[in-house]
Amino acid sequence: MPAMSIMSPSGELEPILNKTMADIVEARLREYIRTKNYKPGDALPTEMELAEGLGVSRNVVREALSRLRMLGIIETRKKRGMVITQPDILGSFEKVLDPIMIDEATMRDIFELRLVLEMGLPDLLFPRLTEAHVTELEKIAREEQATDNFRIQNEIAFHGKLYEITGNNTLKRFQSLLLPIFAYVITLEEKPTRGKISHSGLVELLKTGNKEAFRQGMLEHLRPHFDRLEHPTPGE
Amino acid sequence: MPAMSIMSPSGELEPILNKTMADIVEARLREYIRTKNYKPGDALPTEMELAEGLGVSRNVVREALSRLRMLGIIETRKKRGMVITQPDILGSFEKVLDPIMIDEATMRDIFELRLVLEMGLPDLLFPRLTEAHVTELEKIAREEQATDNFRIQNEIAFHGKLYEITGNNTLKRFQSLLLPIFAYVITLEEKPTRGKISHSGLVELLKTGNKEAFRQGMLEHLRPHFDRLEHPTPGE
Repeated sequence: MPAMSIMSPSGELEPILNKTMADIVEARLREYIRTKNYKPGDALPTEMELAEGLGVSRNVVREALSRLRMLGIIETRKKRGMVITQPDILGSFEKVLDPIMIDEATMRDIFELRLVLEMGLPDLLFPRLTEAHVTELEKIAREEQATDNFRIQNEIAFHGKLYEITGNNTLKRFQSLLLPIFAYVITLEEKPTRGKISHSGLVELLKTGNKEAFRQGMLEHLRPHFDRLEHPTPGE
Repeated sequence: MPAMSIMSPSGELEPILNKTMADIVEARLREYIRTKNYKPGDALPTEMELAEGLGVSRNVVREALSRLRMLGIIETRKKRGMVITQPDILGSFEKVLDPIMIDEATMRDIFELRLVLEMGLPDLLFPRLTEAHVTELEKIAREEQATDNFRIQNEIAFHGKLYEITGNNTLKRFQSLLLPIFAYVITLEEKPTRGKISHSGLVELLKTGNKEAFRQGMLEHLRPHFDRLEHPTPGE
């Protein structure tokens, strides 16, 4: 295999404090894969070749490779050894999104991020909306009126459907990953707040085909959340 | 330490095909941390205790712990051993966002996601906009007019500043992570397309204080990208 160095290829000095050998080797391997222009399906040198190339122990290489496997960058295939794969870009994101471990500032950031997504969604939603979609949304809104109280499940069903309609799987999955954080913030409230416009109201606006009217409706629907934002965040 | 099992705690049968021992132990440790309600700063049992609790080798536990360390869920501290930390939720996301490895459908998804963010941004931007921010944006727009051609650097400077103004660090960082994908898609175009409204035009709209006028300006600014979306995506 080509010569590799454990040094940063830029030749710049970088802080290595608090970095383990596995951190360094993991970063070097990711960089190696990038600069070699490896494509999904390409085979990687063996563990032993990598250890020799980097001048480190096989244990360290194995540890770094295990991390790349977790990230979905490589996988082990019978007879072919390690090959490059198409990573699941949201896979590891999912593993760290736990409200217990996320600090309050980040949770507030994520909450705001979700509001931004909802307000920008109409531009993706309207070009792809069909009559069948409207019928599905009507059904969800009708079913929740039967229960007549605020339920996080209703929120998930209705808004999740809006994301689904866009046909954008990454976006849909991203919002579903953010849901636990969103639900957590909502449950911290003394009593859940509701905007003036209900899900049924939003469906009516969708049916008019007027994107901007729908967006204003969404703003009213989310108004209680936006009202809390108006004040500059502490620490600014 | 409390009894742990390598089995799924739900007792359900789950597919274990293609899973390595490290995958299984990693998942069990994440679950253990969650169910134990560990908070940042809390100490984790030792490597040996975890290996005994799970009935697996220390090597496998070490491999799984290395992954948790990469995710930023734990860190090793002198004298205290392994402690729970607040993970950097976008850290691993960053490691897999490489245009070379991401498939086309996901890249298109990410491109659309960025458009959604831009269209939803005004609701976060306007409540936090100051005169100093407007001056900074004017400066950026003026400087790019001196160069008078489409430069990805100008896009990054102007739109990046809009995200910065929201004061939402997660959002700002998230969009900067998406930039390489965005830039990659743009460079695939035969010639970069520009909307009718320039960055200077957007600043003028910001100054009017009219959020919806600004949003419509942003739509015009991004129009060439949106026009390509109107057609349903292939495979639908």
